[in-house]
Amino acid sequence: MSKDVFDKGFEIRKSVLGAEFVEKSFASADDFNRPLQELVTEYCWGAVWGRDTLDKKTRSMLNLAMLSALNRPHELKMHVKGALVNGVTRDEIREIFMQVAIYAGVPAGVDSFRAAKEVFAQLDSQKA
Amino acid sequence: MSKDVFDKGFEIRKSVLGAEFVEKSFASADDFNRPLQELVTEYCWGAVWGRDTLDKKTRSMLNLAMLSALNRPHELKMHVKGALVNGVTRDEIREIFMQVAIYAGVPAGVDSFRAAKEVFAQLDSQKA
Amino acid sequence: MSKDVFDKGFEIRKSVLGAEFVEKSFASADDFNRPLQELVTEYCWGAVWGRDTLDKKTRSMLNLAMLSALNRPHELKMHVKGALVNGVTRDEIREIFMQVAIYAGVPAGVDSFRAAKEVFAQLDSQKA
Amino acid sequence: MSKDVFDKGFEIRKSVLGAEFVEKSFASADDFNRPLQELVTEYCWGAVWGRDTLDKKTRSMLNLAMLSALNRPHELKMHVKGALVNGVTRDEIREIFMQVAIYAGVPAGVDSFRAAKEVFAQLDSQKA
Amino acid sequence: MSKDVFDKGFEIRKSVLGAEFVEKSFASADDFNRPLQELVTEYCWGAVWGRDTLDKKTRSMLNLAMLSALNRPHELKMHVKGALVNGVTRDEIREIFMQVAIYAGVPAGVDSFRAAKEVFAQLDSQKA
Amino acid sequence: MSKDVFDKGFEIRKSVLGAEFVEKSFASADDFNRPLQELVTEYCWGAVWGRDTLDKKTRSMLNLAMLSALNRPHELKMHVKGALVNGVTRDEIREIFMQVAIYAGVPAGVDSFRAAKEVFAQLDSQKA
Repeated sequence: MSKDVFDKGFEIRKSVLGAEFVEKSFASADDFNRPLQELVTEYCWGAVWGRDTLDKKTRSMLNLAMLSALNRPHELKMHVKGALVNGVTRDEIREIFMQVAIYAGVPAGVDSFRAAKEVFAQLDSQKA
Repeated sequence: MSKDVFDKGFEIRKSVLGAEFVEKSFASADDFNRPLQELVTEYCWGAVWGRDTLDKKTRSMLNLAMLSALNRPHELKMHVKGALVNGVTRDEIREIFMQVAIYAGVPAGVDSFRAAKEVFAQLDSQKA
Repeated sequence: MSKDVFDKGFEIRKSVLGAEFVEKSFASADDFNRPLQELVTEYCWGAVWGRDTLDKKTRSMLNLAMLSALNRPHELKMHVKGALVNGVTRDEIREIFMQVAIYAGVPAGVDSFRAAKEVFAQLDSQKA
Repeated sequence: MSKDVFDKGFEIRKSVLGAEFVEKSFASADDFNRPLQELVTEYCWGAVWGRDTLDKKTRSMLNLAMLSALNRPHELKMHVKGALVNGVTRDEIREIFMQVAIYAGVPAGVDSFRAAKEVFAQLDSQKA
Repeated sequence: MSKDVFDKGFEIRKSVLGAEFVEKSFASADDFNRPLQELVTEYCWGAVWGRDTLDKKTRSMLNLAMLSALNRPHELKMHVKGALVNGVTRDEIREIFMQVAIYAGVPAGVDSFRAAKEVFAQLDSQKA
Repeated sequence: MSKDVFDKGFEIRKSVLGAEFVEKSFASADDFNRPLQELVTEYCWGAVWGRDTLDKKTRSMLNLAMLSALNRPHELKMHVKGALVNGVTRDEIREIFMQVAIYAGVPAGVDSFRAAKEVFAQLDSQKA
């Protein structure tokens, strides 16, 4: 493992998904899933999200499109929250999922809209 | 059909994929595939690409990520060309496909890099 | 938007998925998902379901096969109900999902049978 | 193996995909792929296509939709030919792929139209 | 149907997924899903799992990789249990899903780890 | 980057896919695809293939199943060759793809058999 890349990834991951959530994931990791936590932090968040050329807002938008096409609602909801943190607006999220409906098919679009609405409702109720 | 939306879509499609290519597609369409050409032009290019909120460069980036995940190399190559027209740089295309390799898997990333290299080689040989 | 195509799509959508459900979807739509509701109604239900050559029963059967292969259980359940409305029998639904098990794999078939049984149980309890 | 189901499957497979093609597949099978040939003939063509309730024309239509969604162009082309044999018209094939474009996404629709046009061109040149 | 292949499949299926579960599935089957139960038992568990050359432990490992890639969490959880019965250790399951994260993408890996943890927690609570 | 993990990955990758092929890939890499080559070598081949618990033969078998399900024929052919190097026999490859036909669907199985036959023919002609 490269400690530098891991540390960079850990910071980026916390800034996007929330420090509390990420620290809890590591604190509760056991021998079974700790290797995955480490791999994802170093490789996904350090070695790729940590690269320049694309800013975090753009990376969030790409993820919303990909996770819709890949049909992974659990990860999608986390990245809807992360996208808002990275400055993607709700209007932009709507446009991304309209484009998903065309390219990945209407059911993918419909499922992603529903996932986003659930996230928005949760966030709005926390603020209220 | 809405003639306004179709016309808008026809202009956007030509500006992204090339006027000559799109006009030839329509000129050579027959009773079998003309309905698809019209549907795609009106809904995909008019009703979705024609919306504001996301610019064409961003829409191209989303498409490169989605078409990689959806495993559609023929459309992907067309949209690599379109992305360059819309101002996505080769360095940005590389970054998009690095992110594809993480989220959609290494084989999806490898296939997309190969597709992009083929497009670049073709474009470079035309310029030479 | 083409008002004619939208209106045609609105009628077909209500006839397949239920007038109450569709009217409620539109009534509860907000700025976030109204554009999707409109796109789907016009494009999916008007411009495609509204075409002749294939009747609604056949379109429902195609959808059950595709939604199984695409792994979209939420939409699949809605279209199981719609298929029954369009005259697809429970025996025919069974045969479609047997064919899904062969072409899209046994897990796709098993998941679709389970989804259909849930819909049937819900419908039967409403009648009781 | 059930000889009855295999024999039934062998007849149906030949009637849909062409006797010459299927007999050649078996004649050229070796120890590597003979078990697959036998499995597919017995289970896919005998145990599923051989069931009543859905006629062969309907089964062909379901396959065109599924194979498009599953992104399997080689099998799709064979089943475009088989669909024509089973009485699906070119106009109906167009409508199926229009519906694919909506539910499985525009790139799936575009790829399937191109596959069908290749098959039609090949068939037309054989007749000429 | 071949009674021999069915009977062999029935025994293998019970040995992997649990006799009680499989017998209950058959006992509760109705006219709608009995044909699927029979097809899966004969074709999947008899004609393929019943073949030599690969032992059951290897077949379980292949299934964990495939069901992750195919995004079928319900079947995946059943096969996590079955894999443990067939001698796949929890450490080996972890390694399979690490490899899934690379080849099918990080979200597929994350989803499969979560599914496995749910199964382990359920099994551990039954033992406690 | 962790030089140790990269170096380990480079050795494993060469041992599986062939030293000549891998060295040529690196020698011909340019600014566009060198980052992917490095990422894949370090994370895929070093950080995952380099882990203990599963031997290389098992990892090759998992890859054949996953790459079939993921529909990536180019990578699949490379890993058929790699699997033979890692001690997977042609008979075992046949069994893996029989299982693919059940779980990922008959078209996935058929496509993978065809891919394997092409690889075998190429290898046999080189030996002749």
